[in-house]
Amino acid sequence: MTQAAPARSAKQRKQDTLARLETDVDAWVATAGAEGGQPYLMPLSFLWQDGHVHVSTRATNPLARNLLATGRVQLTLGETRDVVRIVGEAEVVPDAEATTAFCDTFAAKCGFDPRDSAGPYPYFRIRPLLVQAWREVNEIADRDLMRDGEWLVED
Amino acid sequence: MTQAAPARSAKQRKQDTLARLETDVDAWVATAGAEGGQPYLMPLSFLWQDGHVHVSTRATNPLARNLLATGRVQLTLGETRDVVRIVGEAEVVPDAEATTAFCDTFAAKCGFDPRDSAGPYPYFRIRPLLVQAWREVNEIADRDLMRDGEWLVED
Repeated sequence: MTQAAPARSAKQRKQDTLARLETDVDAWVATAGAEGGQPYLMPLSFLWQDGHVHVSTRATNPLARNLLATGRVQLTLGETRDVVRIVGEAEVVPDAEATTAFCDTFAAKCGFDPRDSAGPYPYFRIRPLLVQAWREVNEIADRDLMRDGEWLVED
Repeated sequence: MTQAAPARSAKQRKQDTLARLETDVDAWVATAGAEGGQPYLMPLSFLWQDGHVHVSTRATNPLARNLLATGRVQLTLGETRDVVRIVGEAEVVPDAEATTAFCDTFAAKCGFDPRDSAGPYPYFRIRPLLVQAWREVNEIADRDLMRDGEWLVED
């Protein structure tokens, strides 16, 4: 293992995490089938807005089917030595809340527009329950920045 | 979306994939609980040897518990716009096969030595069943390099 930099403060980690949520384009998205023992891992572009991660994929894809069936998701951003890890719960954005402004913002950030798709292509809103951030081993101990949906760290 | 480079040939993708397996240190590892709807996503360092991905983690960790219970795993290497994705089946490396040579090679590659751990810290051997590689949308169509454990592409 390479020599690690000093551990960041919790406040710094939260700032770094929020910056990634604002500017990173893609996340690794892990879901699981409702039947057990069926992981599914794919990258997906996302929009961070109003404290939620928003993604969209075709309703017939395993990722969408898993989210629709279970509502459970884990996401990571960044690189394996600069990790942001989120455990969240997902729900479909109701049609009434998928406003033109929201959909335009999503398309601009994510680089594709679900409205262009022929088949059902729902938007999912993911509420973070657990947020962790760490780089190397020396940041593992204090990696929890949010638990039970509440930030543990002031801005 | 940024302008994509021309799609790589299948042969080039296989070469790039094998190079990543040899030299990348970490993978994103997705497993799922046996009970259904419980994804678990973590980065882990790995050793590619004899056509298998080898990882190790504490037997009490969710990742190890999921592998022990289900044997199912999905891995990604690289970045979200330069993806290697592997669907595999995992089994514990039998003690008789965890030779000193293997354990030394694992420790040198992965940067930690499971033999130093107090508690049970099994090695897992993951056999790839499906291997995919893609960068941008123009590489999605032909992304399968291995199916059912067989390479579709010559070296």
